[in-house]
Amino acid sequence: MQKNHREKLFSLFDDNQYGAVFIQGAEIMYRHETDYEYPFRQESNFWYLTGVNEPDCAVLLDLKTEEYHLFVPQRDSQYAVWHGYVKSQESYQKEYQPDHLHYMNDLLKVLKEINPEKTYCLNEVDAELIEDLDRHFEADIESLQDALTYCRVLKTDAELELMREAGRVNNLAHLEVMKSIEPGMYEYEAKAVFNKVQLENGLQQDAYNGIFAGGKNAAILHYVENNSQLKDGDLFLLDAGHEYKGYASDYTRTYPVNGKFTKTQASIYQAVLNALNTCIENVKPGVKMEDLHLQAARIMMEGLKAEGLLKGDIDDIMEEDIFALFFPHGLGHFLGLDTHDVGGYPKGVERIDRPGIKYLRARRNLQTGMVITIEPGIYMIPALLIPAFEDETQSKFLNRDKLTELFEFGGIRIEDNIIVTQDGYENITDVPKERSDIEKVMNA
Amino acid sequence: MQKNHREKLFSLFDDNQYGAVFIQGAEIMYRHETDYEYPFRQESNFWYLTGVNEPDCAVLLDLKTEEYHLFVPQRDSQYAVWHGYVKSQESYQKEYQPDHLHYMNDLLKVLKEINPEKTYCLNEVDAELIEDLDRHFEADIESLQDALTYCRVLKTDAELELMREAGRVNNLAHLEVMKSIEPGMYEYEAKAVFNKVQLENGLQQDAYNGIFAGGKNAAILHYVENNSQLKDGDLFLLDAGHEYKGYASDYTRTYPVNGKFTKTQASIYQAVLNALNTCIENVKPGVKMEDLHLQAARIMMEGLKAEGLLKGDIDDIMEEDIFALFFPHGLGHFLGLDTHDVGGYPKGVERIDRPGIKYLRARRNLQTGMVITIEPGIYMIPALLIPAFEDETQSKFLNRDKLTELFEFGGIRIEDNIIVTQDGYENITDVPKERSDIEKVMNA
Repeated sequence: MQKNHREKLFSLFDDNQYGAVFIQGAEIMYRHETDYEYPFRQESNFWYLTGVNEPDCAVLLDLKTEEYHLFVPQRDSQYAVWHGYVKSQESYQKEYQPDHLHYMNDLLKVLKEINPEKTYCLNEVDAELIEDLDRHFEADIESLQDALTYCRVLKTDAELELMREAGRVNNLAHLEVMKSIEPGMYEYEAKAVFNKVQLENGLQQDAYNGIFAGGKNAAILHYVENNSQLKDGDLFLLDAGHEYKGYASDYTRTYPVNGKFTKTQASIYQAVLNALNTCIENVKPGVKMEDLHLQAARIMMEGLKAEGLLKGDIDDIMEEDIFALFFPHGLGHFLGLDTHDVGGYPKGVERIDRPGIKYLRARRNLQTGMVITIEPGIYMIPALLIPAFEDETQSKFLNRDKLTELFEFGGIRIEDNIIVTQDGYENITDVPKERSDIEKVMNA
Repeated sequence: MQKNHREKLFSLFDDNQYGAVFIQGAEIMYRHETDYEYPFRQESNFWYLTGVNEPDCAVLLDLKTEEYHLFVPQRDSQYAVWHGYVKSQESYQKEYQPDHLHYMNDLLKVLKEINPEKTYCLNEVDAELIEDLDRHFEADIESLQDALTYCRVLKTDAELELMREAGRVNNLAHLEVMKSIEPGMYEYEAKAVFNKVQLENGLQQDAYNGIFAGGKNAAILHYVENNSQLKDGDLFLLDAGHEYKGYASDYTRTYPVNGKFTKTQASIYQAVLNALNTCIENVKPGVKMEDLHLQAARIMMEGLKAEGLLKGDIDDIMEEDIFALFFPHGLGHFLGLDTHDVGGYPKGVERIDRPGIKYLRARRNLQTGMVITIEPGIYMIPALLIPAFEDETQSKFLNRDKLTELFEFGGIRIEDNIIVTQDGYENITDVPKERSDIEKVMNA
């Protein structure tokens, strides 16, 4: 599949064919001057172009001949003591099928043969490496990132298959946790169940640092401590996923610790679910993420108003950005080799400087082949609500007494992974989200 | 307990009391220019002195007054959106009890008040920060690392308690995997079982990237793929552990995938176990790690000779470093806030440039309060044996035919965590290692 990716990239450089593309792959990362190694994970652009998920390699693409040069490290014999063997050139060739395979230290020689007018790099480090090799080489770091982003945003069928597989395992993992949650459990025990299903299916790399949050912890968008006990009557929010061959899955579910929604939980949950379902139904090529975001916000604010937590006209609630107090993050983001995948903001498109939407990670028309998350949420965040109670404009819309009672409520987020198709969408996520389905699973 | 640590450090600077110690704590690490965050883990020296396991802090110790200044970040209100709240000065004060609490941007002011003749730092980054604040400040990076190493090598009772707790959970996790292993399982399924037990007990930070290796993979000392299927008749090697409040556990066990040692497996296993048990029995203050290393090597080579894999005089086998072909790593290392903890080589002591021992990570006399691993191993590593067969000296000792038959054997390592006590030792590790005990557990 990486051959297709390289061809996509070559097609963008048709007018620039006397150049080359150069990227150094990732090295192993260590913790604070110790020999603690983080599990190796290739840099996503390098992975995209080569499929190589091992350290210390580099790629050079000749834009004229469209030839793929892979550079691999030359390991000394001591390497075999720790790694069992030194990988042969034949193994590299067989596994990655470059047009030309070289050792790293042949880079200058190969570059001189190609003699590119310009070498396109992702960052200063690579650019300096090239320019330091020979004073005639000229590196450019303006174009490649955009070109690769353009390629990566629209997934090929082969990429979609990997994302479906990541999703298939994430479906299992989320369901298993849903079945296991009960009062008295610790959040890390939920993580234990979740990670076990992912690992049993061979998914060893998390897509991000997962959130396992009971009660008010669910209102901490960035909660990663995962060390509190789950309480009867509270909600539990699980936002986690793993990678399959580099491609991320990213789901969120929220449900009652004891398996039964209270009236208030049910009503706020339904507002979030309505927002999710409506936005998903509206996904199709040409739709703008920012429009979906505002649509979700409006549906959720209508829910809070019906529950008596907000008052006033819904148009005013939207106009005054009241929704930003309860829904302070974006509706969704692109998903792929990174969880917050590239391409959210095409060149020239800036973030909207408005409280209710400035954290939206993607602002552009949807196109066939994009993969996005849709993840509306409502949170009771005292750090946002208390100042709002004192704000002349905002306080008019807020039912202070009722909201204050909910300071320990936490939050609700529901998140699915969606492929944009020609006709509309395909939902990768298949984990119960209707309240009745959740209660059935939890009380089976 | 960190107060004791600071007092230990102060006592080393009695002649230098017009100075100060400055360390910046760790920041959050990100993956390759993305927003993928690695789970935060404090730098070990900072943790040792402060107990603070959160990002963006700094510590300043006044060597004259022995006062502890903690610097914490001043978060803006946006921080509350993602983290739920901004931690108050009162919370910091209550949790960490510094003598003085400051925001980061007060560093210059505080340093001017203390006006140290010299500020001791761990690295260039911190030293430059200090010297850039005011041209009168002088930073020193020669002394602090050694002083902290001196402190950290000898554990306090409170530290030993944490290490026992890390060990207690690791005992459970290793036992659970031993019970679950069977032919057809994948290595990552063993990891799933192992991590689940650690997580269920609240241990969310691994001590290192664990090794779950079936068959010949066990001969790859640095094996981290963990994606092969376990085969009937093969051995399985598990080398993994988690941290408890920063303190590492690090055990290895090796056992037959099908629960029954073959004759050859049993005989090589017994050689490794004899080395382990003898070395542990010999642990006491005053003993040298390098002597234990050579003792372990000799016992294991005797075992290989008895099995007919080696020939010749055992003194010659040792003299010619033949043991380095089968036991190419060190017998053990210090253990603490890092898995390969500081202090293995005191100042002026170099590694021994000899094939059989140059990878030994600790070379010094044992003292009461040290915590070490003892981890002898025998491996069949074709990348080492094939050249040895062609070596005039080495080949004389090797039974080429028998060893060649074992090219797929893999390896055996058994590793316990040992506290050096006044009278000898305390073994933290309690996971079956006698063959009969292992077979009983696996066939229960």
